This record gives sequence, structure tokens and C-alpha cells, in this order.
Amino acid sequence: MPQFMDVHTSMVGVTADQLREAHQADLDIQGDEGVDFKQAWADPNTGHVFCLSEGPSAEAVKRIHERTGHPADEIHEITVTA
Amino acid sequence: MPQFMDVHTSMVGVTADQLREAHQADLDIQGDEGVDFKQAWADPNTGHVFCLSEGPSAEAVKRIHERTGHPADEIHEITVTA
Repeated sequence: MPQFMDVHTSMVGVTADQLREAHQADLDIQGDEGVDFKQAWADPNTGHVFCLSEGPSAEAVKRIHERTGHPADEIHEITVTA
Repeated sequence: MPQFMDVHTSMVGVTADQLREAHQADLDIQGDEGVDFKQAWADPNTGHVFCLSEGPSAEAVKRIHERTGHPADEIHEITVTA
């Protein structure tokens, strides 16, 4: 299953509760697209959030984030890890 | 210990061997700065590489990547996860 790292760049000030709620909203519907969100890392100062997932395609990841109201600014397909 | 996600944006075409070598070079000297690089994820198509680490400061992470010849374009301090 391909892996993806998506990036949000406009979440300045995101709190732990807000990130947990946003992540949970994704988890609640991810099965519709066969996506599995693994983890989210946020830097509230710069507003960057990084989400690691597995799924069938970048488009599938994109649709989940759009439906939950926090579209990703970038979605990168991870094909090499170390 | 603070966590950091640093981003490289100019590694188009990076291979598994190249990423492993770059990551190993960081691991070899990270102790000099008290940094612990956890994992690296690469998208060779867009040239983006994401590195997760723990360390005392963003500057410490920055110095390790600079000394090994692959400076980070962004370093984000991760203070919220989900």
C-alpha cells in the first residue's frame, strides 16, 4: 500500500484538542477511501501539520481531508524511507 | 526532548541508497549535538524529504544536516501530535 506525507501550512495556533479532533474526523471516514492515517505532527508556530498515511492514492487522501474540512496543501507519495 | 520535522525540497530523484547514505551520515555525527534522527521519508518525484528527530534545538538539527552536506530548507518544532 503506498504511503503519503501530506502537509498543511495554514494551521497557525493549532491546539492539541483541535489537532486531535481534526485527526479523529479523518479516522472516522478514512475507511470510505481505504486510507489509514498513521500520525500527525504539528508546529503551531509555523502552522505546519504533517500527516503520514497509507492509502490507494494521493487522491483518496485528498478527498478525506477535503470532506473533513482541512484540505492538504501538498500530498507527497513516499516511495523511499530510511 | 523537543521533536522536529525538517524538510528538504530539492532532492528530486533521490534513490534508496542515497537516502540511506545521507541518513547514515547524520546518524554518525548526531551525538555531537545531542540529536536523534528517527526516520526519513522521501518523495523522489517532488524532491521532498521529511526527517523526524529529537534534539535540544532546531539549531542543533540544522548544524548536523549542514555538516553532512544536505541542509534542511525548513525545520519545524513539533509541539502537538495526534
